Amino acid sequence: MSAERLLVVGGDAAGMSAASTARRLRPADDLAITVLEQGPEVSFSACGIPYWVGDLVEDRDQLVARTPRDFTARDVDVRTGTRAEELDLDAGTVRTSTGETLGFDRLVVATGGRPMRPDVPGLDAPGVHGVHRLADGADIRAAIAAGARHAVVLGGGYIGLEMAEVLRTRGLEVTVVLADSLPMPQLDADMGERVCKAMGDLGIDVQPDQPVCAVETGADGAARAVTTDAGSYPCDLVVVGLGLGPEVELARAAGLRIGETGAIEVDRSQRSRSHGHVLAAGDCSETFHRLTGQAVHVALGTHANRQGRVAGSVVGGRAARFAGVLGTSITKVGDLEIGRTGLCTGQAEAAGHDVRAETVEETTRAGYYPGAGPIAVKLVVDGGSGQLLGGQVVGGPGAGKRVDVLATAIWAGWTADELADCDLSYAPPFSPVFDPVLVAARVAGRAAGG
Amino acid sequence: MSAERLLVVGGDAAGMSAASTARRLRPADDLAITVLEQGPEVSFSACGIPYWVGDLVEDRDQLVARTPRDFTARDVDVRTGTRAEELDLDAGTVRTSTGETLGFDRLVVATGGRPMRPDVPGLDAPGVHGVHRLADGADIRAAIAAGARHAVVLGGGYIGLEMAEVLRTRGLEVTVVLADSLPMPQLDADMGERVCKAMGDLGIDVQPDQPVCAVETGADGAARAVTTDAGSYPCDLVVVGLGLGPEVELARAAGLRIGETGAIEVDRSQRSRSHGHVLAAGDCSETFHRLTGQAVHVALGTHANRQGRVAGSVVGGRAARFAGVLGTSITKVGDLEIGRTGLCTGQAEAAGHDVRAETVEETTRAGYYPGAGPIAVKLVVDGGSGQLLGGQVVGGPGAGKRVDVLATAIWAGWTADELADCDLSYAPPFSPVFDPVLVAARVAGRAAGG
Repeated sequence: MSAERLLVVGGDAAGMSAASTARRLRPADDLAITVLEQGPEVSFSACGIPYWVGDLVEDRDQLVARTPRDFTARDVDVRTGTRAEELDLDAGTVRTSTGETLGFDRLVVATGGRPMRPDVPGLDAPGVHGVHRLADGADIRAAIAAGARHAVVLGGGYIGLEMAEVLRTRGLEVTVVLADSLPMPQLDADMGERVCKAMGDLGIDVQPDQPVCAVETGADGAARAVTTDAGSYPCDLVVVGLGLGPEVELARAAGLRIGETGAIEVDRSQRSRSHGHVLAAGDCSETFHRLTGQAVHVALGTHANRQGRVAGSVVGGRAARFAGVLGTSITKVGDLEIGRTGLCTGQAEAAGHDVRAETVEETTRAGYYPGAGPIAVKLVVDGGSGQLLGGQVVGGPGAGKRVDVLATAIWAGWTADELADCDLSYAPPFSPVFDPVLVAARVAGRAAGG
Repeated sequence: MSAERLLVVGGDAAGMSAASTARRLRPADDLAITVLEQGPEVSFSACGIPYWVGDLVEDRDQLVARTPRDFTARDVDVRTGTRAEELDLDAGTVRTSTGETLGFDRLVVATGGRPMRPDVPGLDAPGVHGVHRLADGADIRAAIAAGARHAVVLGGGYIGLEMAEVLRTRGLEVTVVLADSLPMPQLDADMGERVCKAMGDLGIDVQPDQPVCAVETGADGAARAVTTDAGSYPCDLVVVGLGLGPEVELARAAGLRIGETGAIEVDRSQRSRSHGHVLAAGDCSETFHRLTGQAVHVALGTHANRQGRVAGSVVGGRAARFAGVLGTSITKVGDLEIGRTGLCTGQAEAAGHDVRAETVEETTRAGYYPGAGPIAVKLVVDGGSGQLLGGQVVGGPGAGKRVDVLATAIWAGWTADELADCDLSYAPPFSPVFDPVLVAARVAGRAAGG
């Protein structure tokens, strides 16, 4: 009896989690696993690239969690530098960029994300870089080493914020050009304003409400300015941090159904809605929001890992379901920490809630304890029931991770009053007598009529 | 129509919360409020005393949250330096240390805690200090200013640990004498060992398994050594940090029922079980454990505040219930942060659980990010159901407050697997891809058969 053949297309977080999980459940004589990865590495931390550029991480290899060899040692055949060109789902074959045609019995599509790029002239010029692969980080480092002085960062989400900060700390002049009126569109405007101010305090020039029109190039063909309707920003380095969309061309061509989010439609066990025997996981696939039940596309390594694990479990013969997302995330700019989870005010209103939103301003530690910094906690609750819908935290060191308590309470389906009653920890070096999230919960509970 | 008269005995966290809450709900012409406080101040942070001794807090007044004048301005008659000597519940009168007899219609007993002291000779000698009132802090500061060189700290709980650290940073030689085999008896032994090692790394001499036999005094009558069965530890300063018991003498003499914990028995609305029209709150009263439902005595400012608020609500005519405790707490020794919540292994076994306990060792941040420190997370789960029963966290900066996520998950009644699925935040400066609490939950879930 020959082994069943599993093909995994894409060797980053989702693909490698799927492969590892399937291997843990089924030995090599029962399941042969082949992973095709177009890039040179597997299992690297894209989230770490800004910190490598910022010299906070010294060595590129520190961002590589596992090498292809690590997987080979576990009987997973990893083929880097090999692109899946075409899938034939009926025949069960894939044609690769190396000219081979491989057969498979089971398929996991984990083609990941594709950096969003506006359709404007000059974006392919030398000097314009994404922040997606390790090679991007190497290119930006090389540009700095070659004397880049002024960077324009397109985008004010996580990557845009992080890149702006590290380029500034490396000594460059930095302009952030935003299509929106504020950075961090995942936050309510009042919280985004705090982030914007912190960027200014770091000496970062923020230019809001300006969709980019073009990247101008010089006589050498390289980027020399970013232009918008409102201005022109000279630069010798352009960093594109506009987020990730799903990479679904291979899946679409193969006939897998693509949802309204633009990602592959899957059920809660990561099975394609159109081809139940095909699995998809990670940034190329849809997920669902825990609160609204709606399909969403959220490109994050944690979800990719978990979805990969679910897909691998299914291949391994073990029932598994992905539990959904709240859109919890965290970042920092300088000493300002930023966390968010659940629905922001606009999202909650769009979902039909009678929204109450309350913000409290407290300190991260007891007010008298050294290092106590400001922290603002905003809670979004449903006015009828008092149910917690979303939370946002912006503040000094120690503020950000408090969003995890909010995520846990929202995940549990609690009202604000229920959170306010919860027995959280207190000591002067860590919080005021009542942790800021508890104070926020009490205020929000009152606003909801509790 | 004259106002109803509320008497509050004790003007710390519980008493003042009760007074404030009652006042918010009922104006002065409806309810007259008198607070009797034997000490010189109200609403001060006893938890902050170690940090004042350690010069981390410069000014004593920073530890005073509100002054009697703040309350007087809100029509609460606060009488400091006035002790309630005797209560007559039938007559509705209190005799005070100032020779008055006051009448009352409603009563809140909030007499607080009493520092535990072993019954050994010499404990009343000059040079022996508690850590209970601001005056204690002033005395210890004076002793250091007068040249104290070697301190013995009795007790290895929160206060003992914190005092040992700050005395060490002030340059004293410090010996901690423990009746138990490890500091922090609220932790499992393997976690307590980590704390013990950190104390040693700070140059603190830990002497375990040695109940104190006597404080020896010199020719001047002042403490000069602490003796145990195993040794004698010379010192010129003794700090007693053995925890707080309930202060119930007044209540007991008045006939209020005292529970097995030694504290005043109350229902969930803080009403005395023997005298339903009398309320009790804070360190003098019992509370109940959220997981076991059993009466417990936990002396913590957060609970005292909340119980006071419940008592004040009841007086104010608004239904309120105290939601119970998990025994969540946090402290630090040097850079080592320590958090715990719920049941430790021994408590869970005593409550009849088939216990599974798992410890994981991770890093506080992504391993490659500067400042990533070790963190150990231990989870105690029920082997039959997988229900989370307790959590302990010991690690570098950023570790401690993670206990709040565990407290929230336990409060929600989750299994370990449910926590493992929860959408917590990730970015390299804040955690590995999977937060250590999630990794611990996954491992514990597997151990419980999930």
